Amino acid sequence: MEKQSLQEKIINKQAQIGIIGMGYVGYALAHLIAKKEFSVLGFDINKAKVTRINKENKKNLHATTNNTLLAKCDICIVCVQTPVHKNRTPDLSFVKEALYTIKKYHNKEQLVIIESTIAPGTTSTIALPTLLQGKKKVKNRFFLAFSPERIDPGNKQFSIDKIPKIVAGVNNESLILIQEFYNQIFQKIVPVSSVEAAEMTKILENTFRLVNISLINELTTYTNSIHVDMWEVINAAATKPFGFLAHYPGPGIGGHCIPVDPYYLLNDAQKRGINLSLVQQAGNINEQQPTKVVTRAMEIIRQHETIPQHIPASLPTQQLFLESNSLGLLSGTKGGSQNISLDKTRYNVLLIGIAYKKNIRDIRESPAIKILKLLEKKECQVFYHDPYVKKFQTYFSSPLTENTIQKQDLVVIVSNHAIINYEKLANYGIPILDTTHLYPKGVYQNVYYL
Amino acid sequence: MEKQSLQEKIINKQAQIGIIGMGYVGYALAHLIAKKEFSVLGFDINKAKVTRINKENKKNLHATTNNTLLAKCDICIVCVQTPVHKNRTPDLSFVKEALYTIKKYHNKEQLVIIESTIAPGTTSTIALPTLLQGKKKVKNRFFLAFSPERIDPGNKQFSIDKIPKIVAGVNNESLILIQEFYNQIFQKIVPVSSVEAAEMTKILENTFRLVNISLINELTTYTNSIHVDMWEVINAAATKPFGFLAHYPGPGIGGHCIPVDPYYLLNDAQKRGINLSLVQQAGNINEQQPTKVVTRAMEIIRQHETIPQHIPASLPTQQLFLESNSLGLLSGTKGGSQNISLDKTRYNVLLIGIAYKKNIRDIRESPAIKILKLLEKKECQVFYHDPYVKKFQTYFSSPLTENTIQKQDLVVIVSNHAIINYEKLANYGIPILDTTHLYPKGVYQNVYYL
Repeated sequence: MEKQSLQEKIINKQAQIGIIGMGYVGYALAHLIAKKEFSVLGFDINKAKVTRINKENKKNLHATTNNTLLAKCDICIVCVQTPVHKNRTPDLSFVKEALYTIKKYHNKEQLVIIESTIAPGTTSTIALPTLLQGKKKVKNRFFLAFSPERIDPGNKQFSIDKIPKIVAGVNNESLILIQEFYNQIFQKIVPVSSVEAAEMTKILENTFRLVNISLINELTTYTNSIHVDMWEVINAAATKPFGFLAHYPGPGIGGHCIPVDPYYLLNDAQKRGINLSLVQQAGNINEQQPTKVVTRAMEIIRQHETIPQHIPASLPTQQLFLESNSLGLLSGTKGGSQNISLDKTRYNVLLIGIAYKKNIRDIRESPAIKILKLLEKKECQVFYHDPYVKKFQTYFSSPLTENTIQKQDLVVIVSNHAIINYEKLANYGIPILDTTHLYPKGVYQNVYYL
Repeated sequence: MEKQSLQEKIINKQAQIGIIGMGYVGYALAHLIAKKEFSVLGFDINKAKVTRINKENKKNLHATTNNTLLAKCDICIVCVQTPVHKNRTPDLSFVKEALYTIKKYHNKEQLVIIESTIAPGTTSTIALPTLLQGKKKVKNRFFLAFSPERIDPGNKQFSIDKIPKIVAGVNNESLILIQEFYNQIFQKIVPVSSVEAAEMTKILENTFRLVNISLINELTTYTNSIHVDMWEVINAAATKPFGFLAHYPGPGIGGHCIPVDPYYLLNDAQKRGINLSLVQQAGNINEQQPTKVVTRAMEIIRQHETIPQHIPASLPTQQLFLESNSLGLLSGTKGGSQNISLDKTRYNVLLIGIAYKKNIRDIRESPAIKILKLLEKKECQVFYHDPYVKKFQTYFSSPLTENTIQKQDLVVIVSNHAIINYEKLANYGIPILDTTHLYPKGVYQNVYYL
């Protein structure tokens, strides 16, 4: 029998698939492709993760830390993270590392697909040269395609195979191969004319979200000042059957996409001397949102404090606590707002949900972490409870017991994980700052909103 | 028979309706209410408009300039315009004038409904005091409600009665009355808890549009720089079944809503010391958009000019024309880009569509007018053609004849009215700047985009 071409292997489902990065994108994609009867190897450096995946014993799916197995793969899909450095410039080290590794074991025709979000131009000007550098033999050649992942973690309405898949190739052959392949995996393929257009599509989607959520957060400051409920306004506007899409106020956007991707764009635009003022402003608003939450939190805490009788009523509250902050540590258990006295120099605050989003365990860029650190700077002792995040950095999730709750001056809901009993929580009577609007308005006197 | 209450008159369709302002909002509403078997009087100061409406001879609808007939009305609906002053502060003079007039002839229980877009707080703090000032008799009282118009001119998919109608009253009685009334007129009523929430709803809807269109216009500068077609990117992003709503680049937003309403908001926020930076930035981008169109127009004109042989090739084109600008006037008819010489000091530019939007005749805040004035400052002689706007200010629509077209250096499509033969227009070979993307890309060599 004659040797099959890459295209024939794809059509016959005999192409070996390798997915680099078993994060939520790579893992979900691996599952889907395995379900479609392709043999999938999932590569990850995290041994525990690899063991966990292999324990699931899924048909056609095997996870490994052994990169030499990349030599067997006909299609290599790059699903590693693309974070930003502290100075908000793109960190492409994971993508580059993946490409170097693919190249290292490369010995036959391979289609490389990048799914990681990257700035327009990255596939052509960084990924392609990385793969081709020093390549001499035409027969061992690469095809290179870009297809941005569009997974919405936790979204049950649209499973990964139902979300139309944008595809583009660095040349026509690459485009044909990725179409041939993804047509067997996804319900709908959307080819675009260049990898740059595909890269920009994903950036546009996430920039749209950043700008619109930031807009709503900005407007909420205004509606609060006129005593109008922004949520009521948004829900009323959402009844318009065209020209509007509801976004809601919140503690700031987290995750590895929306708060990150627009900075790839800003970075590249800046290099070209283009000022994207609206995107920049939206980024600033989002970064300031945790500060806004903390300001609101401190307002509520102070509002609930009882000023002891021997303090002249004319002394401003804020001044009082600025002075008392230097005195010492927390004194004993407190029962809501009653037992607070001047001896107290710290407040206890419990954050509910440290993950960046409800019902998931991802804490990347989570506003909850920023809120936690900011509250600590305000002389608060901060606890958190998150059923999905047992620990992070030096912090451990506190059990949501009566004992934990009763000693708090304030509870801040940052991510509204569905498995928590919020009714019970509210009934303790401790003030709650609900940044997610999970409590209906007007029901609990101790619930506050942003 | 005992005298009917206002509520009974509404239920029995015996309430006399008066609509003040027969612009497109008032006129559409008058038609709809008349169709629902209420007797409607349409008030306008424009006699020609009143005559035109009465000639239509619509059942239950009569237009008039006679304000004394307001005394007969049980429900007065204010549909006058609310523009902004040159300094972008709200101009409420038309609303106030309407309310004064209603009050002047007021002699029985009346429900006053404001449909005009106004800043949050205007109904309570300006409209209500205006109506009540000097009122003594409780029996002749007013009910006051706010219900923002949501008409999308030219939108055939959603006729006015199918768009859910936001309603709010200054008190409970007013809310009950407007609900009773509009329930008989519109398919769906959306009551909100305060007039401020209703006012803010409309402002949010239009601010959303301003911000998103400005975002796309901002990003188009970037995608142009990387040679990516923004329209392709938007259409690809629009295949995402959640979290995205397509907006498109354009010459700037016109009309009396989107470029205006956000300034009511900005004005009120400023008074409260709240900086709405994102909204402000979106407004700035929109105001700069006509300048961007003109820059692009001049680029295209210069690109199409042939530099005569006796001019040294090293002389920069721009400098050439800066010098030649001072020499004199346009010399004779030109045939595209061939006959241009140094004698020429002006370019001829034809704008297609002076209305702010396709298929309508409204020129309020139209970017086309700004583009026209800016082009004139660039030493261009500007013509326009608009089948719906025969004249404005000192300008008259030029017929779209071969003679008109052949003498142009550039045609700029600003509003893509459907009745124009664009294929024929493109086939003259004159460069066209299509700000509306009506020409598919790659078909005409002489068509350019923003």
